[in-house]
Amino acid sequence: MRMRKKKWAIPYLLEHQTKVLQNPQSYKGKWSQKLNKPFLRLEIGTGKGDYLTQMALLNPEEGWIGIEKESNVAAICAKKIVTQEIENCVLINQDATHLLEWFSPKEIDMIHLNFSDPWPKSGNSKRRLSHDLFIQKYVEILKDNGMIILKTDNQKLFEFSVKAFLNAKLTLVDFWVDFRREEQNDVITEYESKFIANQQPIYRCIFQKGEFNV
Amino acid sequence: MRMRKKKWAIPYLLEHQTKVLQNPQSYKGKWSQKLNKPFLRLEIGTGKGDYLTQMALLNPEEGWIGIEKESNVAAICAKKIVTQEIENCVLINQDATHLLEWFSPKEIDMIHLNFSDPWPKSGNSKRRLSHDLFIQKYVEILKDNGMIILKTDNQKLFEFSVKAFLNAKLTLVDFWVDFRREEQNDVITEYESKFIANQQPIYRCIFQKGEFNV
Repeated sequence: MRMRKKKWAIPYLLEHQTKVLQNPQSYKGKWSQKLNKPFLRLEIGTGKGDYLTQMALLNPEEGWIGIEKESNVAAICAKKIVTQEIENCVLINQDATHLLEWFSPKEIDMIHLNFSDPWPKSGNSKRRLSHDLFIQKYVEILKDNGMIILKTDNQKLFEFSVKAFLNAKLTLVDFWVDFRREEQNDVITEYESKFIANQQPIYRCIFQKGEFNV
Repeated sequence: MRMRKKKWAIPYLLEHQTKVLQNPQSYKGKWSQKLNKPFLRLEIGTGKGDYLTQMALLNPEEGWIGIEKESNVAAICAKKIVTQEIENCVLINQDATHLLEWFSPKEIDMIHLNFSDPWPKSGNSKRRLSHDLFIQKYVEILKDNGMIILKTDNQKLFEFSVKAFLNAKLTLVDFWVDFRREEQNDVITEYESKFIANQQPIYRCIFQKGEFNV
């Protein structure tokens, strides 16, 4: 999500180092201790952080880690964590390509990808957060039976992602071509609600790592 | 597809036994010979037969076998085969539950399921043509690397079907949540064109039997 540059963004991010972690690599293998939660969820590409912060508030027994490389939106996300004093939630304002430097193998329970940039040009496919180059990293840091949950309004990204996850030998647990057709136990952000208001379907899939994969 | 009873239907079907096969079991293991084509496609639930007959005409090098249990629509399909003298196409006006009596293992190259009845009530799920009870039969009669191609306007049937095919250890080759978004090399029937005109998406998936399945 692109937006105008905010002068206050980087200073704010640097100012709140207890919530916006400057050295995520120092918690590698120790995230459960750091957040004091055994169950860890990672949202990659938090944008303004509505999903991350609302879900973290709704699930206080879980640890939520957000990653957002764009400082201008990361700062908005950080502000929500800070002002609402969300204890079980931290943010990393860096590029997710460094995932393996920050997390140990089998450290994470669930990875969320919400409305990721579709990078529509095929030459940019490696930038998609559901490209195999990323998926290999997700698989490494996920626990056995850990899950990846992807939600998008973008048809092509959805088709691309489902095929990529299956090619990576992940197991499809569930999927929806119109996720909001029925009531769901999942936060609706302002961003998502615009698609719903326009009667555009939300696509969603859940893939699992684990022994199901023969 | 339900419609008013047609008095002429059953007499017509019985009258054209070269096209509407009364004893399909007698061709078991010999369909390639019968149709004089090495490549065999099966459409289960042809309805009025627009897809079957147009595809058979477009692909004269292939043998096309249609199955439709409702005599009233089967008769309309039969009429198209007979009046257009489609040589590479025959019809079976019986229930597809008998598939294994008619076809030998590994006899069929491709199976098409087009706009199958979704049987929305969960108590009726066994009647869906993509229920595991049917899929097991498809897998048996498909050649190695044979394919199942499903097309539908029904979201729930699509979600159910994809999950059922994956559970049956078939491999997803491709899938679309809006198949007509781009031009496709696949016949659009009158029935399908109504959904397109209403801007309703067509869902489609291709699954493969074969050595991909570890």
